[in-house]
Amino acid sequence: MNGKFITFEGPDGAGKTSVMNEVVGPFKQQLGDRLLVTREPGGNKISEEIRHVILDRQNTEMDYRTEALLYAAARRQHLVETILPALNAGKLVLCDRYVDSSVAYQGAGRQIGMKQVYRMNEFATEKRLPNKTIYFDIPVEVGLTRIAKHRDSTQIDRLDVETTEFHKRVHQGYMAIRKKNAERFVTIDATQPFERVVADTINVIRQIASEYF
Amino acid sequence: MNGKFITFEGPDGAGKTSVMNEVVGPFKQQLGDRLLVTREPGGNKISEEIRHVILDRQNTEMDYRTEALLYAAARRQHLVETILPALNAGKLVLCDRYVDSSVAYQGAGRQIGMKQVYRMNEFATEKRLPNKTIYFDIPVEVGLTRIAKHRDSTQIDRLDVETTEFHKRVHQGYMAIRKKNAERFVTIDATQPFERVVADTINVIRQIASEYF
Repeated sequence: MNGKFITFEGPDGAGKTSVMNEVVGPFKQQLGDRLLVTREPGGNKISEEIRHVILDRQNTEMDYRTEALLYAAARRQHLVETILPALNAGKLVLCDRYVDSSVAYQGAGRQIGMKQVYRMNEFATEKRLPNKTIYFDIPVEVGLTRIAKHRDSTQIDRLDVETTEFHKRVHQGYMAIRKKNAERFVTIDATQPFERVVADTINVIRQIASEYF
Repeated sequence: MNGKFITFEGPDGAGKTSVMNEVVGPFKQQLGDRLLVTREPGGNKISEEIRHVILDRQNTEMDYRTEALLYAAARRQHLVETILPALNAGKLVLCDRYVDSSVAYQGAGRQIGMKQVYRMNEFATEKRLPNKTIYFDIPVEVGLTRIAKHRDSTQIDRLDVETTEFHKRVHQGYMAIRKKNAERFVTIDATQPFERVVADTINVIRQIASEYF
């Protein structure tokens, strides 16, 4: 295992995914095959099928623990099919969301309990955590306002149909995770102008993965 | 929670399911709505979809931990949608396979580790175990010979395509589970003639759920 594993985390509306898309181009030019950019379900057939079950809007009666187990199953398959082979080949892996998202969203947001969700995910990951996690920090209200602006109703999936209280609990969950894993987390102020957030992200990645540049 | 929860366990070929089918008729006549007979995925839409992902023969590249997490997800949904409401209504619930199957098949058979699979399933069940478990005991070779006789190749799903070594590990797993949960398990000799196994099963259920008869 000689690659480097970096995850992107943050609440909805932090712009995480847009920033990743912006960062990928220049990095890909520089690093070529030494870079893997991915997110769950990561394009593998099994995880895509699992994701489909989770996001099916007809499945509104899904129990929260069922949902958490399905996310962990998709994560496991993505890890063994996509992430671990890339790390074993020495690549730099940038992954949009990983275990911390489940601990924040299912553990804190859904109120299953952060410790319980984390432990269940240890089964899925065999305790494989990222080397570093870049956190896109934004107040709950700002994030929610951004979501409302940028998406139209046809794009809204089951997970968006949530209360503000839910998103506040997710935010608190993330704060607890960052406190507990202070050495793993790097925080970026996502309330800055987009170009600034992109520049910060590029700088942070160059620093924490300096051996690739 | 004033119902009674009884599960049926055993290796492939023990005749468990055939016996259950035979037992249901007379019990249903006597108990009517006070009886629920079920098995995972239990007819609920979400668990059926999950089961479909697990048993899809094209998914041969599925990781064993992914499989175990998917079984736990289907189990969770079946528990909250079907079993718990019946128990809360005071019913006698007979269920074909439950957590012990995962511990034996995924934990011991797939060699993930029995303790790890059990702990992950605690997340799914919130430690809800059956009041009693009826175990259909049969030597590995006898069970496998029965399977080969009774099924034609079109019926064989992914789980049947396994080695004898796998089934031996499952059997050893079940032995360890029974030893550890001696007070919960009742064992029936499944090598007896079918009618005898059915009669024993009826007697055992009448004894352990005597309040219903």
